[in-house]
Amino acid sequence: MNTLQRLEATIAARRNADPDSSYVARLNAKGLPKMAEKVGEEATETVIAALTGSDEELVGEGADLIFHLLVLLQARGVSLDQVLAELDRREGLSGLDEKAKRGD
Amino acid sequence: MNTLQRLEATIAARRNADPDSSYVARLNAKGLPKMAEKVGEEATETVIAALTGSDEELVGEGADLIFHLLVLLQARGVSLDQVLAELDRREGLSGLDEKAKRGD
Amino acid sequence: MNTLQRLEATIAARRNADPDSSYVARLNAKGLPKMAEKVGEEATETVIAALTGSDEELVGEGADLIFHLLVLLQARGVSLDQVLAELDRREGLSGLDEKAKRGD
Amino acid sequence: MNTLQRLEATIAARRNADPDSSYVARLNAKGLPKMAEKVGEEATETVIAALTGSDEELVGEGADLIFHLLVLLQARGVSLDQVLAELDRREGLSGLDEKAKRGD
Repeated sequence: MNTLQRLEATIAARRNADPDSSYVARLNAKGLPKMAEKVGEEATETVIAALTGSDEELVGEGADLIFHLLVLLQARGVSLDQVLAELDRREGLSGLDEKAKRGD
Repeated sequence: MNTLQRLEATIAARRNADPDSSYVARLNAKGLPKMAEKVGEEATETVIAALTGSDEELVGEGADLIFHLLVLLQARGVSLDQVLAELDRREGLSGLDEKAKRGD
Repeated sequence: MNTLQRLEATIAARRNADPDSSYVARLNAKGLPKMAEKVGEEATETVIAALTGSDEELVGEGADLIFHLLVLLQARGVSLDQVLAELDRREGLSGLDEKAKRGD
Repeated sequence: MNTLQRLEATIAARRNADPDSSYVARLNAKGLPKMAEKVGEEATETVIAALTGSDEELVGEGADLIFHLLVLLQARGVSLDQVLAELDRREGLSGLDEKAKRGD
């Protein structure tokens, strides 16, 4: 089991924990809009760290972004595996097809 | 080698490719602010898909967000392993410490 | 009638125009999530221009952000006057109250 | 003097106030990246309020977004008048030119 799978399992285990003792449970108790908001906030912080921060800050913000993305996906019942499968599927497309698909 | 490691290697291989044939090369040619912008855009689209979209749309936007995050990290010389190591490190913290660290 | 009131009136006049001839009509035809997405995108571009762009670029992105915010508010039936009234109301609060209200 | 001009003047007056008594002074003391971050956060909250919130919530988030945009512009030495002049300039362009300029 790799890091992200383990993290996904941890998030699943904490979702219904006591909000007083678990950050994940607190986020879930606040509802989907709040979890989505955190993804937006952490993305902004990642953008800013990429442009003005140290490597350490960028690593921390990137970790925050992935963590909150996993929380959000799980709240919607979407698994990390589904997202990884989609990335695999795209990777399988040829470079030219990919280019055509993405446009600019 | 798992999906994200493979994706990171593919991005590394394409960074200096011909911008006419590679989306990754085109992004890199446009510079760090443009790559950061894409992370912000994909995060917004992920937020919106989480609140109003289908599972399939959310999977697609989550994949876009991770892809562009990897492009941005690589342009800054930060590896996926560094981010995963940070997630592992946090995971190692106890639930209570984690809670204290994160606050609300 | 000042600039923003005039802009709001123009947006109102174009909402139901032919999408082939009006950008505002095209946005409205695409629905609320698309209009919200544009606000998120323009905010990201404003953030990036503030950190790495020229004054001219920041002015342009700030204008884009305000324009798309007005489009979004109008699509929800919220007027610029309501937002300005809220800003006036807060302005009327004393500095200390304001501080207490906002926290950090 | 209208609401936004008055707000801009208030922000200017508070920029160099005691951070203990002024939210604007606190933001300025934290630096440009922090002010940019707030614009990104408030935009995310506006997006979410537009999709899932009440009119009152959307009004509040729109007000927050405009307030923090003014704080950011001022920290960069860009005036509200410059942004309004840009909006006026675009408004002066014909519908067709505008359409051609914006594309889709």
